[in-house]
Amino acid sequence: MNSSDSLSPRRVAIVGGGVIGGGWAARFALNGWDVNVFDPSPDAVRLVDEVLANARRTLPMLYERALPVEGCVRHCDTLESALEGVEWVQESIPERLDMKHAVRDAIEAVVASNLPIASSTSGFRPSELSEGAAYPDRIVVAHPFNPVYLLPLIELVGGNTATIEKSNAILRSIGMYPLHLRRENDAHIADRLLEAVWRESLWLVRDGYATTQEIDDSIRYGFGLRWAQMGLFETYRIAGGEGGMAHFVEQFGPCLEWPWTKLTDVPELTPELIDAVASQSDAQSGQHSIRELEQLRDDNLVAILRSLKGQGAAAGTLIAEHEKTLPALDAPSSVGQGSSDSSNQSIDERSESFLLTVHRSVPVDWTDYNGHMNESRYGQVFSDAADAVLVHVGCGPAYVASGLSWFTAETSIKYLDETHAAESIIVHTRIVFSQGKKLKLAHDMRRASDNSTLATCEQFLLHVSLDTRRSCDPDSTIGEHLATLARAHGEVAA
Amino acid sequence: MNSSDSLSPRRVAIVGGGVIGGGWAARFALNGWDVNVFDPSPDAVRLVDEVLANARRTLPMLYERALPVEGCVRHCDTLESALEGVEWVQESIPERLDMKHAVRDAIEAVVASNLPIASSTSGFRPSELSEGAAYPDRIVVAHPFNPVYLLPLIELVGGNTATIEKSNAILRSIGMYPLHLRRENDAHIADRLLEAVWRESLWLVRDGYATTQEIDDSIRYGFGLRWAQMGLFETYRIAGGEGGMAHFVEQFGPCLEWPWTKLTDVPELTPELIDAVASQSDAQSGQHSIRELEQLRDDNLVAILRSLKGQGAAAGTLIAEHEKTLPALDAPSSVGQGSSDSSNQSIDERSESFLLTVHRSVPVDWTDYNGHMNESRYGQVFSDAADAVLVHVGCGPAYVASGLSWFTAETSIKYLDETHAAESIIVHTRIVFSQGKKLKLAHDMRRASDNSTLATCEQFLLHVSLDTRRSCDPDSTIGEHLATLARAHGEVAA
Repeated sequence: MNSSDSLSPRRVAIVGGGVIGGGWAARFALNGWDVNVFDPSPDAVRLVDEVLANARRTLPMLYERALPVEGCVRHCDTLESALEGVEWVQESIPERLDMKHAVRDAIEAVVASNLPIASSTSGFRPSELSEGAAYPDRIVVAHPFNPVYLLPLIELVGGNTATIEKSNAILRSIGMYPLHLRRENDAHIADRLLEAVWRESLWLVRDGYATTQEIDDSIRYGFGLRWAQMGLFETYRIAGGEGGMAHFVEQFGPCLEWPWTKLTDVPELTPELIDAVASQSDAQSGQHSIRELEQLRDDNLVAILRSLKGQGAAAGTLIAEHEKTLPALDAPSSVGQGSSDSSNQSIDERSESFLLTVHRSVPVDWTDYNGHMNESRYGQVFSDAADAVLVHVGCGPAYVASGLSWFTAETSIKYLDETHAAESIIVHTRIVFSQGKKLKLAHDMRRASDNSTLATCEQFLLHVSLDTRRSCDPDSTIGEHLATLARAHGEVAA
Repeated sequence: MNSSDSLSPRRVAIVGGGVIGGGWAARFALNGWDVNVFDPSPDAVRLVDEVLANARRTLPMLYERALPVEGCVRHCDTLESALEGVEWVQESIPERLDMKHAVRDAIEAVVASNLPIASSTSGFRPSELSEGAAYPDRIVVAHPFNPVYLLPLIELVGGNTATIEKSNAILRSIGMYPLHLRRENDAHIADRLLEAVWRESLWLVRDGYATTQEIDDSIRYGFGLRWAQMGLFETYRIAGGEGGMAHFVEQFGPCLEWPWTKLTDVPELTPELIDAVASQSDAQSGQHSIRELEQLRDDNLVAILRSLKGQGAAAGTLIAEHEKTLPALDAPSSVGQGSSDSSNQSIDERSESFLLTVHRSVPVDWTDYNGHMNESRYGQVFSDAADAVLVHVGCGPAYVASGLSWFTAETSIKYLDETHAAESIIVHTRIVFSQGKKLKLAHDMRRASDNSTLATCEQFLLHVSLDTRRSCDPDSTIGEHLATLARAHGEVAA
């Protein structure tokens, strides 16, 4: 509660509070922005709350560090009050151009002329949205994908250079991937692809070739797995082999032509076709409520995104980059003096000199079939805590690149309590001793919500030369830094 | 080298040894089948070897247990010799109907009348393939997706009931997901969807709306992540919310209609368009060779598939089910008496009574940025080893369901050597003592290739009642089983 208080949070206006508007609100709020929502519909508060609950559970799981302190989400009675002091306006109202123009006029009447007004539209071009606008250059399309709080893609088009630069910076700061389109286009890019698949799928259902379940299976057991990481062209580049893309297009073009030319009509949306799709979908997914499906989807997305993060690939890279911008570790005021359950060992008051080394959420891929954090992940948390100590004393990636590092020789963990997905955990680390190449750490892992101890760990590390693979003393400045910490922590223990 | 010798491996004929044929060969061989390849092309041996090398590295990573002993891959000089003693024929030659008919006739001249002859064709219907066949009922399409050794989907169509049943059983036994199409259809199901996206993408490139890189990004940062797990309809069911699928189709049908009707022509494959696609793809991916791209793709697929396995979702469920059919743990003959490096502690010869508790490959999602197995994964391996002990003495899922279990109270790990992705590791476990509710295990983790010790672990477990969350003695039969093991292992240590 120190530096962040002096800096008041940035503020955004969310106009239209459905699933998409709620997703925007959640992504901004969880990244520390204050959010003003305007939506006169009686369902808006409930809908935004539901999306926020989903987002609070899953978005923090993408990162190995805690997100900023959540911003305040306020539902406003008037559009004018929602627009007060905001840096960005995101409109996500229904896809009717007359309504979009009316709302835009009302926004323009209040806000500064250079404030970006972004629309979530998938159906209109920026030139249509800005028809008759007072300042058309600040009107952009920022088209997101559901769930907005987890999927990073934004199709960004319209506005002048200043608007695009501002939009890019804000969208990137909340972990999104703005794809700036080179020129406007009906349905942008992704929706043209989605509509093409949707059209083919409706034909397949209509003609009785496949049910909705079979079509979904043909995607998720096959090319859907490829597309989560590489998309279409890079995948086909591999299929083309050494011959390359030109070879691929020439080889597969003619052989694909016949189905191409045959299946390009548009199926009529007859009541029979709508019934077929709806009843097949019920048979496929009807055992789950929409809320359950959302949670299944979100857990899977978290797991997939984290798997890509581990590989340094595609959307996973983006998350790793965004993580670097998250606030540095800083002891929350409750730790070390919180209302600890008396049955737990409470941290000595002097332990405030111990290092705060981990503050994060427990992701779904860390839990076992019982929903508890898997035993080995305790080890991972303590391994991360040791890394944080080493970075703190100057043994970060640059030090490792110089050919020196610390290897863990021995780890002993005491498991004291269970923890679950989405819980926030905190580790404090004490330097037990530091003698030349030998370093001993003691970690204490607590649940943030009640400050109860989950596990403790003693860890013995050896300083090594990566060239000789033998132990050796660290640089003297690092040795002194560690020794100073050990003395401070030792005094606490004495 | 005991029971499996008496049972000779099943055998398959792979006709056509390109990327697809090689993928089939790899999936069969790694699942323990002997594979006869026939392809007169001079490149076939190299191509199949390259695919096999990729598959050997990645397919075993999908499982927490070792795959069966790899079958023998033999390149045959004649089609006749390739067909000897096989249970299945998979044809993956170029997409020319006259060639497919000629090869089919040559196969039919040799094999039994009820042997399934499967084609990897994406372009022909089974009725076309079986025109003029002696036994058309055994001719099926089994259309796979690249990389065949990792992606499970097979579109299965044609043949009579007996052929389909046999095909289903064989394809499932090698971990695939046969999707039996209800009737034949040009381009089956998935390729209709893929062609639709391909057509739209070529338009986008041709009209200058997007480059190949931008199209790929619009997929992999957005809907590609959704499709890896749920496909199209289940995703849209969620978008439809409480209104359901009929509501979704009615709401989004009309608003999509205009782009639908506009973008359904087929772009002409002019030299200019082919050049644009090829040069954009070079700019996007040209820094990587095809081999490098294959490895990036495969590592990502392994990570995504394992993430879905952890969630019990989509293709991950399939892998978990297939894993249950893998051979039980059985001490490889080299362990305990292998040519251990003299500098390592070798297992005492009497240690053969220790339990073999883990035998698996190190997957890519277990390694850190240095390519070493992450410290915490040693803990996971030992946690799995303890689970194997407990299952062995009768404390499996049914025991846990009865309200009793073992909790790990303390773990101490000594890290002795590094290990890397794709290496095979083996753990032997000794019961150090078993006294009522107290159980102590000692694990020894070795690299399978040279029998060198990677780490050791001491683990202390407590038997607990899941109802009271307090420790208590286990069932007497389980206590006696553990005590007997401890005595046998204690004698070894004495």
